[in-house]
Amino acid sequence: MTGITETELDSRRARLLQHLVRHNLTGYVLFDEQYIRYFTNLNFLATERPVGVVSNTSGDLAVFVPEFEVERVQEEATFERVESYAEYPGEEHPMRILGRVLSDMGMNGAFGADSDGYPGILGYAGPPLSEVMGTEVAPLAPQIESMMVRKSEAEVALIRESARWCEHAHLLLQEYSRPGATEAQASLRAGYEATLAMLEALGPTYAGQQGSADGATAGYRGQIGRRSGWAHAVSHNIEFQVGDMLVTETAAPVWGYNAELERGMVIGAPTDEVRRLFDHTVAAQQAAFDALRPGVTCADVDRAVLGYLEAHDLLPYWRQHVGHGIGLRNHEAPFLDIGDHTPIEPGMVFTIEPGLYASGLGGFRHSDTVAVTSDGIEILTNYPSDIESLTIPA
Amino acid sequence: MTGITETELDSRRARLLQHLVRHNLTGYVLFDEQYIRYFTNLNFLATERPVGVVSNTSGDLAVFVPEFEVERVQEEATFERVESYAEYPGEEHPMRILGRVLSDMGMNGAFGADSDGYPGILGYAGPPLSEVMGTEVAPLAPQIESMMVRKSEAEVALIRESARWCEHAHLLLQEYSRPGATEAQASLRAGYEATLAMLEALGPTYAGQQGSADGATAGYRGQIGRRSGWAHAVSHNIEFQVGDMLVTETAAPVWGYNAELERGMVIGAPTDEVRRLFDHTVAAQQAAFDALRPGVTCADVDRAVLGYLEAHDLLPYWRQHVGHGIGLRNHEAPFLDIGDHTPIEPGMVFTIEPGLYASGLGGFRHSDTVAVTSDGIEILTNYPSDIESLTIPA
Repeated sequence: MTGITETELDSRRARLLQHLVRHNLTGYVLFDEQYIRYFTNLNFLATERPVGVVSNTSGDLAVFVPEFEVERVQEEATFERVESYAEYPGEEHPMRILGRVLSDMGMNGAFGADSDGYPGILGYAGPPLSEVMGTEVAPLAPQIESMMVRKSEAEVALIRESARWCEHAHLLLQEYSRPGATEAQASLRAGYEATLAMLEALGPTYAGQQGSADGATAGYRGQIGRRSGWAHAVSHNIEFQVGDMLVTETAAPVWGYNAELERGMVIGAPTDEVRRLFDHTVAAQQAAFDALRPGVTCADVDRAVLGYLEAHDLLPYWRQHVGHGIGLRNHEAPFLDIGDHTPIEPGMVFTIEPGLYASGLGGFRHSDTVAVTSDGIEILTNYPSDIESLTIPA
Repeated sequence: MTGITETELDSRRARLLQHLVRHNLTGYVLFDEQYIRYFTNLNFLATERPVGVVSNTSGDLAVFVPEFEVERVQEEATFERVESYAEYPGEEHPMRILGRVLSDMGMNGAFGADSDGYPGILGYAGPPLSEVMGTEVAPLAPQIESMMVRKSEAEVALIRESARWCEHAHLLLQEYSRPGATEAQASLRAGYEATLAMLEALGPTYAGQQGSADGATAGYRGQIGRRSGWAHAVSHNIEFQVGDMLVTETAAPVWGYNAELERGMVIGAPTDEVRRLFDHTVAAQQAAFDALRPGVTCADVDRAVLGYLEAHDLLPYWRQHVGHGIGLRNHEAPFLDIGDHTPIEPGMVFTIEPGLYASGLGGFRHSDTVAVTSDGIEILTNYPSDIESLTIPA
């Protein structure tokens, strides 16, 4: 198991350069850490100190970093050219120094960038690149986002591997969530054990692709008991009680790529009402699986679920759309929402997670990650969805 | 121990309104999650679904959220007015719906905002608010950043409490970092145990102020052995070896406020060269402590350390400035950097962390968090700095 190959990175950069040439731009500058990772595999801690990747239309590729990143970038990445500045803000502003790099690379005419200067991360302030260069800077984010929507086979394989570790972390979470235990106890222990297992299985090369010690995590983010009725809650270190409805979340980036696995669960024997809403949640998710295929739009999939809910008088329990794209970010466009008319294409990867929310009782949501194939979908996450499997002994 | 009081929040909002009145603006809109927390204590998961806080100059305060946040916000926050939209992107774009809220609140003239429309988080796209409202939107981020720089006594107290838990997590990290153990084993175990201790001590009200299950963490982010010579590295799940230099990091937000505690450590008896650079690191940090007081500038503090390094022929080991502001974010302006001429004032809180980096050998950095007082500083973090205390038994 390895990350994205140099060949695939080359091909991504070539596609971006084709876009530039079509628009008579002299090159590009990327500041966003996910975009930089997408085009170069470079992994770094984004702070107020600007980091950028620059390419001219000849394909000369440079990385622009603070001085203390030079040695690491030379050892852990493969840029032909490494340019640096002493420190931020420094005696000369890093954007001025970057301006000279652009000039030196022949980018004196209009160029493209994901943002017009480094964004205001952690207190950063500085001039727009358009002001530094006295030229137009064309926004590239829409083009890049559209490239990221369709995943390659290698990307789907990494998301599939991420799904394995979401499943493992979820199994542990389910095991440690018992009446009398707390949210923090269950989620910290599950994350601890799942991450060590993941690091052992994937090896040290994998670990080097992580930005931090983050690995596999599983938890509730406060969605316990009646708070599970809020689609996004915040943690309260709640103690599990018999009768609680639970909504989980997991994450396990593999070379940066994410799957998502979430389950509704219940502690102790479910009431008839819990069983009814639970079974409808499973059926609503099935309606989305059935609707999702090339040729329909994102809105069609959301509408299929809304149709199911309407037919069963469940619209009062509706709070959120069916799902979102997922990949290097845990949320990406497009969205499976009645307002998103993007046509579904093979290679898109989505979460499928229609939910039902009953005030005072709790929430019901299963999220699975699926890849669109030429004629339907492949479900990448593999975890039981039935209420028997998701009932925690009281 | 509680968070920021309503009285203090009222006073922050009153200061912002004074700024608006001075500039003939009709109100403000905030989208940034830290700014929203600073002015209202509201804690939420920022995604592609816009969340905003709105106030007109009469002080009428509204929160704008997706439908699924309404019930939680009514229960966990204290807004007079809660406005919502069904979903993002939805059939009508949330920015259009927000536009009607602004009109209804009398904000049809120019107003202020931290960004002109919701920022492009996780695939969000939408129109600028200036376009929606057909009016000028004045940037407020510089004003808000300048307000956040000077901390109140309550804020310093929360950072002091954060420091206690950074210390606790660091003690555990030091204990679990032994030859043969891995980076992930040591940091995950330290974070697990420190977080449970922190949640028990601070109680359930505290836990409800956390955005997630995050608590106290301690680790290396890859700064182990020769990789400690890179001021920012990435994790490789490295196994500790005798002779390794280590550079740690910790975090433990308390009602959102952060201290920072970092230490250089060595595994096994230090060589003379390690001892020499280690002792100079301690002395360089002392030079910064001695220089930092009201009346000097940020640049003066950086220059004091550069002076120490120059006097001892240590400039080749220099890679980064002395420190940065810290509070609701783990990095904030101003920066203790020769290029930052901000005058030091009482209430500012900084990290003090000059480092020395020797290629092939490793890095040496202690970071402590200090609050500027009327005549000097209070060091908020309390952890040994001497090499005897920071030598790990081989």
